[in-house]
Amino acid sequence: MNQCDPVVIEPIGIIHTPFKTLDNMPIQPRGAQGVRGTLEIFPPFEEGLKDVELFSHIYLLYHFHRASRKALKVVPFMDTVERGVFATRSPLRPSFIGLSGVKLVERKGPVLTIENVDILDGTPLLDIKPYVPQFDTMCSDASSGWIDADKEKVAAKRSDRRFI
Amino acid sequence: MNQCDPVVIEPIGIIHTPFKTLDNMPIQPRGAQGVRGTLEIFPPFEEGLKDVELFSHIYLLYHFHRASRKALKVVPFMDTVERGVFATRSPLRPSFIGLSGVKLVERKGPVLTIENVDILDGTPLLDIKPYVPQFDTMCSDASSGWIDADKEKVAAKRSDRRFI
Repeated sequence: MNQCDPVVIEPIGIIHTPFKTLDNMPIQPRGAQGVRGTLEIFPPFEEGLKDVELFSHIYLLYHFHRASRKALKVVPFMDTVERGVFATRSPLRPSFIGLSGVKLVERKGPVLTIENVDILDGTPLLDIKPYVPQFDTMCSDASSGWIDADKEKVAAKRSDRRFI
Repeated sequence: MNQCDPVVIEPIGIIHTPFKTLDNMPIQPRGAQGVRGTLEIFPPFEEGLKDVELFSHIYLLYHFHRASRKALKVVPFMDTVERGVFATRSPLRPSFIGLSGVKLVERKGPVLTIENVDILDGTPLLDIKPYVPQFDTMCSDASSGWIDADKEKVAAKRSDRRFI
């Protein structure tokens, strides 16, 4: 296929969480410590879950299905000035793909219970990838760009309707 | 839109790397320490890069464009038995989306120089997200599931043609 061709992705399941609206939702897993949700994997994909329960943490790729417009510059929740969307985790990105790392609590057949969930209820799930410390731990002195907030500030921050 | 509807994603650029074929390519950024590549962002998306250079590390989401089939069970490079695809980082996943964390060396206009690249030359880039230690550092005692390899083993492992 041509490298510029659009990529078509079929959801593999639905993410269920306590967050029914965007108001007051945590903006990152750090702000959702202990909040549980479930992943309901569609039957055609259940076989792909084999052994996923051996991992304690997983990445979720999902569709920001409530974002109705794209923006190349945004004012992030954690900031007061405009940034390029690729310097933020804003939902208004061209791909509309979200990435969150969550704790995997248990698997029962096609249902995974997850913890530290910062995702809207009903969000389409596109992929699950195991978090592998040997692959995924980046440099411990990585710089946080414009984000000077400490973990407590991130944890306390809540969503609003700016990114719908 | 319906939660099961396919999601259509337009590439935002192209990833250029020294790896012209899948043979002998590192399988993870850990095995590609110091290997440099570039991200060429297409003109309509360049504005979204503002301030990305403030971050030292970024996540890349990209399309495994050479994977020609999907498989729900695979034998990963690091293993000898079949695992569910969602318990692996195999390209044969239903989404065909890859995730790599890389070091951001510099930005010159629409071109980002990156380091620790484990990606095939010519790969379509779907998204860039800043790596934010406050958001993204997961539990330090996360379990690695079936992957018992230490960092040196991962670094030494090379790709072959099993996932085309």
